Amino acid sequence: MRKVEVCFSPELIHLFDLEGKIVVVVDIFRATSTMVAALASGVEEIIPFADLEACRLMQDKGFLIGGERNGLTAPGFEMGNSPVAYLDGSYVGCKLAMTTTNGTQAIEKSLKAEEVLIGAFPNLKATVSHIQAQSKDVLIHCAGWKGHFNLEDSLYAGALVKSLESTHESSEDGALAMSMLFEKVGHNLKGFLSQASHAKRLQNHGIERDIDFCLTLDLYEIVVKLDDRGFLVKV
Amino acid sequence: MRKVEVCFSPELIHLFDLEGKIVVVVDIFRATSTMVAALASGVEEIIPFADLEACRLMQDKGFLIGGERNGLTAPGFEMGNSPVAYLDGSYVGCKLAMTTTNGTQAIEKSLKAEEVLIGAFPNLKATVSHIQAQSKDVLIHCAGWKGHFNLEDSLYAGALVKSLESTHESSEDGALAMSMLFEKVGHNLKGFLSQASHAKRLQNHGIERDIDFCLTLDLYEIVVKLDDRGFLVKV
Repeated sequence: MRKVEVCFSPELIHLFDLEGKIVVVVDIFRATSTMVAALASGVEEIIPFADLEACRLMQDKGFLIGGERNGLTAPGFEMGNSPVAYLDGSYVGCKLAMTTTNGTQAIEKSLKAEEVLIGAFPNLKATVSHIQAQSKDVLIHCAGWKGHFNLEDSLYAGALVKSLESTHESSEDGALAMSMLFEKVGHNLKGFLSQASHAKRLQNHGIERDIDFCLTLDLYEIVVKLDDRGFLVKV
Repeated sequence: MRKVEVCFSPELIHLFDLEGKIVVVVDIFRATSTMVAALASGVEEIIPFADLEACRLMQDKGFLIGGERNGLTAPGFEMGNSPVAYLDGSYVGCKLAMTTTNGTQAIEKSLKAEEVLIGAFPNLKATVSHIQAQSKDVLIHCAGWKGHFNLEDSLYAGALVKSLESTHESSEDGALAMSMLFEKVGHNLKGFLSQASHAKRLQNHGIERDIDFCLTLDLYEIVVKLDDRGFLVKV
C-alpha cells in the first residue's frame, strides 16, 4: 500500500524525504484556494513567488500581480489574495504572478518532490482521483501561519488522508491524528474553524465570503500542479 | 482568562514566547514518564542532560546514570529509559543523571520559561492543580520524535488543555485541535496509540509494560519541576 504523511509547517519540511513523492501544498486561508479559484475561472497560469519584490517586477512582463502579506493586499499590487475576486471571469486568459505570506513559501520548499499539487477544498475530490491514478507516496505540506501549525490546513490534510484511505496508509502520526480529527469535526468544518486563529484574523478583515468559499467542497473538477517551468497550471 | 498553547516540536519552540509562562515538557514514551516514576518512587533528584557524554561523566560524581538513544539503553549506562525500572523502590535516595533522544533536549530548549514542569499521564491531575493555583499562561512543549509531531505527546497536550478549560483558554490552533482529538479518542488512549509510530517502535523493543505504565492516569500526587539549580525535583 502507498503511504501518506503530513508536515504541519514549512519549518519542519526538512525532516521529510520529498523525492519520488507527490507533495500537496495547502494554504486554505487563502493562497491555495485562490490559486484553484483563479485557474478554474479562466486564469491561464500562475507563477508563485516567495519574494514580494520579485513578484512585483512581473507586472512589466504583462502579468497580473497578486500580493498579500499578513492577510492584506501588499501595497502597489493589483490583486490581494481573495479567491472570490476571480469568480466572475474578469481574468480569463490572464497570466498571474502571485506571492503570499505562507503559501508561496511552502511551494518553494516543495520543489524536490516528483510532483507538486495545490490543494484546496473546492477541488478535493479531483485531487484525490488524480493521486489515486498514480502509484506514488504522498506528503501533505501545510503552509501554516508563519511557521505555526494551523487548523484549516491540518483539517484539509485530515480530509485528504481520509479520502485516500483505500489506497494510502497513514504511515505517520500527523496523518493519523488529522484523519481522526476530521472524522470528528468534518461535518461542521465552518463552525469548528470559526474558532481558528487565522479565521479570526480574516474575519477582522471583513472577508466572510472568502472563508465560505475556501470551505466549500468539490466545486471544480480541475487539478492544479506545478509544471516543469515552475508555473501552476490546471490539468 | 489565562491562555494555553501547544508546541508540537522542539524545532518550532523558537516561534513561541516562553517568558513569564509555565512550560510543560512532555515526552510520554518515555522520558517524562520515567522522570515522574523515578521521583515518585524515591529518587531524590534528576539532572537532565541533552548531551550523552556530559551525562556519562556524572557517574564519577556519585550519580546513577540513565541514558537512552533511539529507544535503547545507551552503551555503558546503568539505566535506560524505562519507568518501571524504578517502581520497586530500589533507587530510593539516589541522584539520577539522565539523557534521552528527545525529552532532555526539549527541557534544554525550555529554560527561558518562568517555570518548567515535567508532564506525564501518571501525574496529570496533580499537574493541573499546580497550574491552576497560579495565574500564569501555559505552553505545552511536546518533545516529539527527532523533530516530528507525535501522537502520544500531542494527546497528552490535548488532555491537559481539556483539564485546564475552566481556567485557561485555547488561544492557539494546536491547543484547539488536540483538545478536540482527545475528546474523540481519550476513552481509548491505548487502542488509538497502538497505531502511533513510536508505540510501534517500542513494541519492537518488547516493552509493553512501559507503554501500559506511561498511559496510566493519576497514579501519583506529585508535581515535577525544574528547580533553580536545573535539577528536577518533586513538589
